[in-house]
Amino acid sequence: MTILGFGENDLVPLVTAVAGHDLDRAGIEEVFARAAWSGIAEPGDRFAFAVVDALGAGGALRGLRAGWSPVELNARLADAGHDTLPADDLDTALKRWMPRLADAATLHPLRQAARVGARLLVPSDPRWPAGVDDLEEHAPLALWVRGTDEALAALPRSMSLVGARAATGYGETVTGEASAGLVDRGYAIVSGAAYGIDGMAHRAALRSGGITVAFLAGGVDRFYPGGHETMLAEMAQTGAVIAELPCGAAPTRWRFLQRNRLIAAASRATVVLEAGARSGSLNTAGHASQLGRPLGAVPGPVTSPASAGCHRLLREFGAVCVTNPDQMAELAPLDHAPTLFDLGDGARAADLTRLYDAMSVRSPRDAADIAVRSGLPLDRVRSLLGRLELDGDVVERERGWVMVPG
Amino acid sequence: MTILGFGENDLVPLVTAVAGHDLDRAGIEEVFARAAWSGIAEPGDRFAFAVVDALGAGGALRGLRAGWSPVELNARLADAGHDTLPADDLDTALKRWMPRLADAATLHPLRQAARVGARLLVPSDPRWPAGVDDLEEHAPLALWVRGTDEALAALPRSMSLVGARAATGYGETVTGEASAGLVDRGYAIVSGAAYGIDGMAHRAALRSGGITVAFLAGGVDRFYPGGHETMLAEMAQTGAVIAELPCGAAPTRWRFLQRNRLIAAASRATVVLEAGARSGSLNTAGHASQLGRPLGAVPGPVTSPASAGCHRLLREFGAVCVTNPDQMAELAPLDHAPTLFDLGDGARAADLTRLYDAMSVRSPRDAADIAVRSGLPLDRVRSLLGRLELDGDVVERERGWVMVPG
Repeated sequence: MTILGFGENDLVPLVTAVAGHDLDRAGIEEVFARAAWSGIAEPGDRFAFAVVDALGAGGALRGLRAGWSPVELNARLADAGHDTLPADDLDTALKRWMPRLADAATLHPLRQAARVGARLLVPSDPRWPAGVDDLEEHAPLALWVRGTDEALAALPRSMSLVGARAATGYGETVTGEASAGLVDRGYAIVSGAAYGIDGMAHRAALRSGGITVAFLAGGVDRFYPGGHETMLAEMAQTGAVIAELPCGAAPTRWRFLQRNRLIAAASRATVVLEAGARSGSLNTAGHASQLGRPLGAVPGPVTSPASAGCHRLLREFGAVCVTNPDQMAELAPLDHAPTLFDLGDGARAADLTRLYDAMSVRSPRDAADIAVRSGLPLDRVRSLLGRLELDGDVVERERGWVMVPG
Repeated sequence: MTILGFGENDLVPLVTAVAGHDLDRAGIEEVFARAAWSGIAEPGDRFAFAVVDALGAGGALRGLRAGWSPVELNARLADAGHDTLPADDLDTALKRWMPRLADAATLHPLRQAARVGARLLVPSDPRWPAGVDDLEEHAPLALWVRGTDEALAALPRSMSLVGARAATGYGETVTGEASAGLVDRGYAIVSGAAYGIDGMAHRAALRSGGITVAFLAGGVDRFYPGGHETMLAEMAQTGAVIAELPCGAAPTRWRFLQRNRLIAAASRATVVLEAGARSGSLNTAGHASQLGRPLGAVPGPVTSPASAGCHRLLREFGAVCVTNPDQMAELAPLDHAPTLFDLGDGARAADLTRLYDAMSVRSPRDAADIAVRSGLPLDRVRSLLGRLELDGDVVERERGWVMVPG
């Protein structure tokens, strides 16, 4: 028997190992086909999503192999009860996918994953992070993971902490405190493993014994950037390192931008801790906004170009100004304890201010004198003095009232 | 003949001098009576406003002198076609005002003003700053001014720059640049003459040859604080120093808080440049908000308690994040040149990013290779390469295409 052209004896043990659990024949096909699709389509390709969604990953892969034309593909979409796609767009999409079919639809990606201990998650897997489905037609087709089930389960209570590679001491200090503080409050920390702010967010979470998850722009076989290999290896032990491209895939600028949408979608909220005017983290912030996820930005000195991007988020994109872990947690609380804003008794406070203005610690004054000086009616002065006396804030001497210091 | 009990020969020359122009009999009475009221009622007293508004300043003063009861006062309000006021509130108000009547309703305040060269503005004066009328029932009854008509005329194009006394070097630097930059853009600078941010705002405006106006919490005869006497004297020459209390009145905490409403109301917008969590400038910001005036706040390091108040304004009170004079000017532009936000051609930019990802400066690659690497259709790759070649961004060598550096 074969599945998608591969012998069961070759395919089943490999797919089972990479999936991490036993699967039926349809499951085997699904995992294999999604592994292939993760190498055929670039991240965020909505035509790939539509075709896989309509025909199943295996069915769509068979269509590619059969060399279906846009017309044939649309006929199948219609048969499956799905909307057809513009023929021009499908034609362009097929031209994108076909050159990659031969390499991607083999056992090679699965073997590479098995070699480094990576697993493949597909959307039907109970460990699939539900947040990324909010990306809708731009959701990933599959996710390659090196890490723990516990880390995957922690994503619904995670916060993304992102920022510029070119971080300052200020940005790193604030990020370290934010990450440790959020771990203390029960959050997992998501970021992009870059130098600067991202790296500090992961490291501080690790140091605090927290769960931290990185989304990479290339394959999880190669920990990028090189200087963070040790950190990412440690994360893979206690947290997770995740990518939507198969092993061997190089990180490109396009893939960094698309990776950012996963960071925004996988977490409850995104905080930009330090970012210059052109930092890639602003792209992550944009994804968070588009997804309706809460977005926070940490301000910095206006004289620091390294904070210009954060200020732009505050100014133009409705980011919430956050200055400490408590405020970050308020962006997406883990529970819903109500917070009250005590407005106080304004009129009484105003009268008290006037009364104290008219009094002295040293010079005793009688109530009439205080009434003239304060502009308050005499009976109001008497009533306030009486109440304050009970509290020990004023005292009546032989020649009049004085304030009690302190 | 007498006016409000004073001989015309005494009153008319004095009032004329302090008003700065000739007045008819009603005008003389109005100026004298408002001068008296400015010493009878504390700033922001809405009952004083209501009574003066209904009966005229002179009529209301006659009523005080006649010892009208709340019932009599309400009868006159009704006669004048105005709403009556709660008898309890009127009773309390009369008890506030009566103790001050004897001192305030004399020639003394006018003589003090004449001595220091201060003038009295009343709402009917064409130089009256219209902005303060937005305070409605909390508008000032009169304004004592030491300064130029030009400065009064500049208030409609002014910006308030306020902040904490306990300013840091950062706050002062940013304030100096803001003030000078706004002067360059045609704004007058309003502030409260305090040490720290206020003082820097005034000084930088003076140094830039701009118009700057201070609102004081006490009388304009005494320049407060003492260390700013020279600065305020210079401001009175080219700008203005304004108070709603008569000469001799001491600044009290209550009066500082009320003074802040004038700063907010007299200017087009308010910017808080540096303020700790308890800075009085947050009160000015609150007034600006209540008045519907644009409110800006300059962020600072989250590690600096001196910026905590600014961050609170950004976070909780909808202040706009402003980082330079251009952004401050945008809060309340002096003209209405449209600004365009160029969204660019997103799809084309995305394809270009992918194309460049797939190319090298050193290794020539043919279009088919670039198509596979980029995931773009071959014909799209060819079309983009053709266009980029015309711009000199890529070049075709013997063995394929390379990017042109720089």
